[in-house]
Amino acid sequence: MSRITPSVRVTKVTVDGGRVSTDTRGDNVIAEEPLEIRVGGPTLTTTMRTPGHDIELAHGFLHGEGLITSATQVTEARYCAGATGPDGRNTYNVLELDLLSSVRAPGLENIRLTTTSSACGVCGSTSIDQIMRKSSHPITPVALNPEVVVTLPDRLREHQKQFTRTGGVHAAGAFTLDGEAIVVREDIGRHNAADKVVGNLLMSGMLPAEEMLLVMSSRASFELVQKAVMAGFSGLIAVSAASSLAVELAREFGLALTGFTRPGRFNLYSGELR
Amino acid sequence: MSRITPSVRVTKVTVDGGRVSTDTRGDNVIAEEPLEIRVGGPTLTTTMRTPGHDIELAHGFLHGEGLITSATQVTEARYCAGATGPDGRNTYNVLELDLLSSVRAPGLENIRLTTTSSACGVCGSTSIDQIMRKSSHPITPVALNPEVVVTLPDRLREHQKQFTRTGGVHAAGAFTLDGEAIVVREDIGRHNAADKVVGNLLMSGMLPAEEMLLVMSSRASFELVQKAVMAGFSGLIAVSAASSLAVELAREFGLALTGFTRPGRFNLYSGELR
Repeated sequence: MSRITPSVRVTKVTVDGGRVSTDTRGDNVIAEEPLEIRVGGPTLTTTMRTPGHDIELAHGFLHGEGLITSATQVTEARYCAGATGPDGRNTYNVLELDLLSSVRAPGLENIRLTTTSSACGVCGSTSIDQIMRKSSHPITPVALNPEVVVTLPDRLREHQKQFTRTGGVHAAGAFTLDGEAIVVREDIGRHNAADKVVGNLLMSGMLPAEEMLLVMSSRASFELVQKAVMAGFSGLIAVSAASSLAVELAREFGLALTGFTRPGRFNLYSGELR
Repeated sequence: MSRITPSVRVTKVTVDGGRVSTDTRGDNVIAEEPLEIRVGGPTLTTTMRTPGHDIELAHGFLHGEGLITSATQVTEARYCAGATGPDGRNTYNVLELDLLSSVRAPGLENIRLTTTSSACGVCGSTSIDQIMRKSSHPITPVALNPEVVVTLPDRLREHQKQFTRTGGVHAAGAFTLDGEAIVVREDIGRHNAADKVVGNLLMSGMLPAEEMLLVMSSRASFELVQKAVMAGFSGLIAVSAASSLAVELAREFGLALTGFTRPGRFNLYSGELR
């Protein structure tokens, strides 16, 4: 049984003109398990995530919070040896990171008190201003090619292995301006999916993500714009709606932002067309 | 201009067989603003929410975290007088609550360190066990009427004023077993929408939500199951997928759980049919 898409017993119910029929069988659902991220000992955050690419997730989370700017600042990442479940096996749900001592000073103490989840980015910070001050990469403005933009949701979907099996998982992808996928990650949480992509780019030495687009299967919230800005993406392409604050922040930082991106059409909230 | 669905300038782009056309005009987006909840002085949490029903949201959040069990434990709720924006007006984004001194002792100090967002429920807690111990209402098991269940997503949608205008907002609703709406709330965050519904029921003296169904426009995650269990709902009806942990927890507590609930069909993950 796959750990990512475990099978559960489900009754499929159909109601057709007053006639109810049922069919009980096994069906795949998307895994949701807690990941506890410890830094230098204490717990930094616990996030509900789909297992897989956890080290990328941790790197992306730390980067999004402004705690690290390079993968070399993480000296070690290991699953906690003592974190075992009822069957005595390691749960692989507790990840311990060590950072260079030089990066521990600023903010870590503070963030331990206020941040708890990669699913809630900004919520962990005491104010929006604080987040906005963290931004380290100036954004390289780009002119979007509309003919590429309208293809991006389908291209993202092509890389979504788990969505097809469960219908219950988000995806984030880094794409070139020409629509080539660089890395795509899936997770039950859209913020986790974005963190995994950012973490992958960080570990590959590909940040800042200049002239790259972050494509999201979800809506665009303030927190996703913030993650895109922190990683230096040039644009954020969302399949669904954009919030008021997402639009405002994207314009402020010069991040291209589209919403309701579908085959044949999209809304451009910020940025220019080619 | 509505504060809930502000109008922003947007370029609607259409790509049809290589021909790109644009139409720039005002369009409504869903508002996303931070709500800082202070309890007895210090900040307890900040959540990105759609303004409106903030006091219900705060009540529901505190209830979901196991901090209060009755609305009478909140002695006062007021928007912070000094929280003004650049234009000198109150932002209505900082809510100050006072609790009876008797409810301050257990857990508040702890939660202040670990919980930051109603958007991340369980993430704020140090372990799932801890959440599960908080459950106060034993659930009244019910047998779902399939003919009612398949109508619930449409009934929820009928009450969604903001979705029609923006396409970017979640809804939560408390419904009777016969499909009558008791209260429906919208928010950019599905957890906030659920907290507003729970807060409304708490303030109306209607908790535990025995023989009521919590209907969600979203997927069912562990955290939404946890909110439903804490409020004593008999069932959780989700329009989209259910996660592995949502299924597991629902079964453990005897909460009826459906996913992919659509006109004519749904998946029953936990509970019985009538």
